[in-house]
Amino acid sequence: MAPILLNSMGNEHNGYIEQEKVYVKNPHLDSMEEDILYHFNLSTKTHNLPEMFGDIKFVCVGGSANRMKAFAQFIHQELNLQGNVDDIRDICEGTDRYSMYKVGPVLSISHGMGVPSISIMLHELIKLLDHARCRDVNLFRIGTSGGVGLAPGTVVITDKAVDSFFRPQFEQVVLGKVIVRSTELDEELARDLLQCSAEIPNLPTVIGNTMCTHDFYEGQGRLDGALCSFSTEEKLEYLRKAHEAGVRNIEMESTVFAAMCRVCNLKAAVLCVTLLNRFEGDQISTPHDVLVEYQHRPQRLVSHFIKKRLGYLS
Amino acid sequence: MAPILLNSMGNEHNGYIEQEKVYVKNPHLDSMEEDILYHFNLSTKTHNLPEMFGDIKFVCVGGSANRMKAFAQFIHQELNLQGNVDDIRDICEGTDRYSMYKVGPVLSISHGMGVPSISIMLHELIKLLDHARCRDVNLFRIGTSGGVGLAPGTVVITDKAVDSFFRPQFEQVVLGKVIVRSTELDEELARDLLQCSAEIPNLPTVIGNTMCTHDFYEGQGRLDGALCSFSTEEKLEYLRKAHEAGVRNIEMESTVFAAMCRVCNLKAAVLCVTLLNRFEGDQISTPHDVLVEYQHRPQRLVSHFIKKRLGYLS
Repeated sequence: MAPILLNSMGNEHNGYIEQEKVYVKNPHLDSMEEDILYHFNLSTKTHNLPEMFGDIKFVCVGGSANRMKAFAQFIHQELNLQGNVDDIRDICEGTDRYSMYKVGPVLSISHGMGVPSISIMLHELIKLLDHARCRDVNLFRIGTSGGVGLAPGTVVITDKAVDSFFRPQFEQVVLGKVIVRSTELDEELARDLLQCSAEIPNLPTVIGNTMCTHDFYEGQGRLDGALCSFSTEEKLEYLRKAHEAGVRNIEMESTVFAAMCRVCNLKAAVLCVTLLNRFEGDQISTPHDVLVEYQHRPQRLVSHFIKKRLGYLS
Repeated sequence: MAPILLNSMGNEHNGYIEQEKVYVKNPHLDSMEEDILYHFNLSTKTHNLPEMFGDIKFVCVGGSANRMKAFAQFIHQELNLQGNVDDIRDICEGTDRYSMYKVGPVLSISHGMGVPSISIMLHELIKLLDHARCRDVNLFRIGTSGGVGLAPGTVVITDKAVDSFFRPQFEQVVLGKVIVRSTELDEELARDLLQCSAEIPNLPTVIGNTMCTHDFYEGQGRLDGALCSFSTEEKLEYLRKAHEAGVRNIEMESTVFAAMCRVCNLKAAVLCVTLLNRFEGDQISTPHDVLVEYQHRPQRLVSHFIKKRLGYLS
């Protein structure tokens, strides 16, 4: 009977490990019969999440649905995967809240604009990874941003994600109380990405702090919103202070992305290309084709990283 | 020469009035040669905004692009407008940030999820209305929400939009300083909408406060997010306090919508249908067809209001 007992114990042990919550931090989930990931139009009852997503090792997220579809197609080509690139379908096609594409071990998801929009996606993504029993997943936000003292087209790998007061923290209101979370990202991942950028021609890249705001106009010191109550000089003074605090770009999602990944033990990085230098203007007037090439840069960088990790590159 | 002078003065006067900023509150806009509404993919140089939008009297906004397209098609039918309903095209089709449809005097725009996402849209919408020289515009947010002590399917017309601390205010960070804005909405518009609801069969409607949060899970006291550090009892206690403060539903955009419309002298209302009663659960498990019918309710209510205003109804 000994071998049978050992096998049985082994299976139970494996079963236990497989069901162990690795990423989520919520004891209530264990008692739920079904988990509906509402904004993904997926559920643990209607979808076999381990079968659909169990092999995911890299998750790349970005604001625009079109861009994240293009990224999925790009990765498909870069990894020389089988099948027609045009057949890659939106896994969330039953809803228009987010788009999601799976290409081999890479998941590409759109998250819309702003902290609340990406936070809904992250809650459901982290639950998805747990339900699918994924392990050792790296998360990347590949986005666009305004540059602070950088030439347009520069990719900024985020050192610290900071708020509008240049603090590396994210404030979450829970039941009417403010909880403060750290926004530190994985240093090793950032260094590895910087090394990758040095191996790719024409991909100007720096590591710097990224300021995350909750508004694109007043919140980022723009003079061209529907509302503006400050002067050009006051705007420039704020940008100078941001630069002194190590801020090299401004976007709208990095703090909650960093905070949630950190709490949930997910290694994560933020790579955003700058579309303009905010010291020189507010409007994005660069020609469309140039913007498209800029937006492709973080994609090329992450693709290089993934290929290296998967052993495609020597 | 007298008549010529009079005409000339008259024209200048009209010209001045037409260019007067009615909605925007930003002196810098006057000195801009071009205004690029980046997230709409529109510009004052490449588009004739007065010709395209000058007759707009009603703007309806909601989170989902599909829903706002369906609303445009619905209004087209309700107003008996000429042309094929399938030919209504997305004015912002060059970008996937927002979708925009014009149907006679009604503009239907999607705004994504959360305060930052809707605030970008509102900045560009309010500039658009100004550039197009629109006057006497009413704005409606028609959305979905979680109900607080209401039967699912109830439409809540917002009295006051309140934050997570039940305060009728919106905090905007501008150049590192917190500015507090009132979130009071137009009382007369809310009353008129309630009157409309009484004229439509099977459209349960109340006036109540709407709580606007920056997170769907922890921020709304849900027990089913990737993160949760509170008990069922603590959640219910928070919802009870919200109910005592007059909160009847929870969503994620109303405070900034109310605040910006108020500052910019735009008469505005928020009408959201409740998809569930949060005292009874967190997950949205209602069948799809029932949800679709619920989501149509605010559309039917606004359509009735618009038809009344346009003299379609006696």
